[in-house]
Amino acid sequence: MELLKERIRKEGRVLPGNIIKVDGFLNHRVDVKLMEAIADEFAKFFDVKDITMVLTAEASGIALATICAQRYGVPMVFAKKAKSDNIEGGLYQSEIFSYTYKKKVTQILSKEWLTDADRVLVVDDFMANGEAVRGLCDLVSQAGAELKGIGIAVEKGFQGGGDRLREMGLNYHALAVIESADEHGIVFRENEDKE
Amino acid sequence: MELLKERIRKEGRVLPGNIIKVDGFLNHRVDVKLMEAIADEFAKFFDVKDITMVLTAEASGIALATICAQRYGVPMVFAKKAKSDNIEGGLYQSEIFSYTYKKKVTQILSKEWLTDADRVLVVDDFMANGEAVRGLCDLVSQAGAELKGIGIAVEKGFQGGGDRLREMGLNYHALAVIESADEHGIVFRENEDKE
Repeated sequence: MELLKERIRKEGRVLPGNIIKVDGFLNHRVDVKLMEAIADEFAKFFDVKDITMVLTAEASGIALATICAQRYGVPMVFAKKAKSDNIEGGLYQSEIFSYTYKKKVTQILSKEWLTDADRVLVVDDFMANGEAVRGLCDLVSQAGAELKGIGIAVEKGFQGGGDRLREMGLNYHALAVIESADEHGIVFRENEDKE
Repeated sequence: MELLKERIRKEGRVLPGNIIKVDGFLNHRVDVKLMEAIADEFAKFFDVKDITMVLTAEASGIALATICAQRYGVPMVFAKKAKSDNIEGGLYQSEIFSYTYKKKVTQILSKEWLTDADRVLVVDDFMANGEAVRGLCDLVSQAGAELKGIGIAVEKGFQGGGDRLREMGLNYHALAVIESADEHGIVFRENEDKE
């Protein structure tokens, strides 16, 4: 998705440790018009008319998932990171490792809001190791729901999460796959997910 | 806001400890059309043409704030809960007590994304003790930005957070103020924030 790559080229920054900072438009301050463009781009890859739910992980995926849900006319649900006292009883749970927070995190999702009648599009703004998405797919599976696709805005291709999902044969698309990011700049993988 | 109160009456539930569960449409599974209606309702109380930024707190405020930002044509920024390694350097920070998680939480916001040129509408989906909102107002103040208003969808009126903000003379509006919630049901405060 050229518009997204252009924003990353212009405004993205690389921090030590191959950290890619896109927090001016994607995951801290959010450019909602860009979210709309990303949601419309996902609609080229996924049969969004057939889904019943957009699923994401808190926190930064919520903005994009909200706009996707709006565009596709379905509700959005987000997996929470830990048990808070306003979620009662029956929960789906998945254990993931958060590289951002350097600790295990339990994703939880109320059984009330995802069932075997659902056809789910998983979306997230950013994927590196793919742990959050792996957990989300696990929640979909626990619900007996149908996973219709996984849409990611920005993938750090060199950290392997996306390739693992591709190898599993899942309906996975990332709109900007970063092949390398260092002091020389950001290089995108070519011919990825042709439009 | 009658539409919101009606949803709370129909789908809200009261759990032991006066916990009000509205997670089927507001803060776990999200009804985006309702968020649109809430954003439009806020626009009756606040001069949304004059703001430059919508500010909220992660996680559950993000969905509503995203739709508000979309409706008002400005970016959205959310305060994060703890330091993650993809936020570098200069941060505004506020210490709040999270009753949900029963511990102190530090809200952080990159200085890059809120400045003294900003005119800010703070929004959140839900307010009880008002700690998250107090922290957000503190971040706005640290930035030297102008606080144009505070819009809350659901306020637990009996926990005092909203009344403290009203007493401070802030431009504060909550669209559904719950006066009591127990085994007998949910009662809304009357004549609150006349439309």
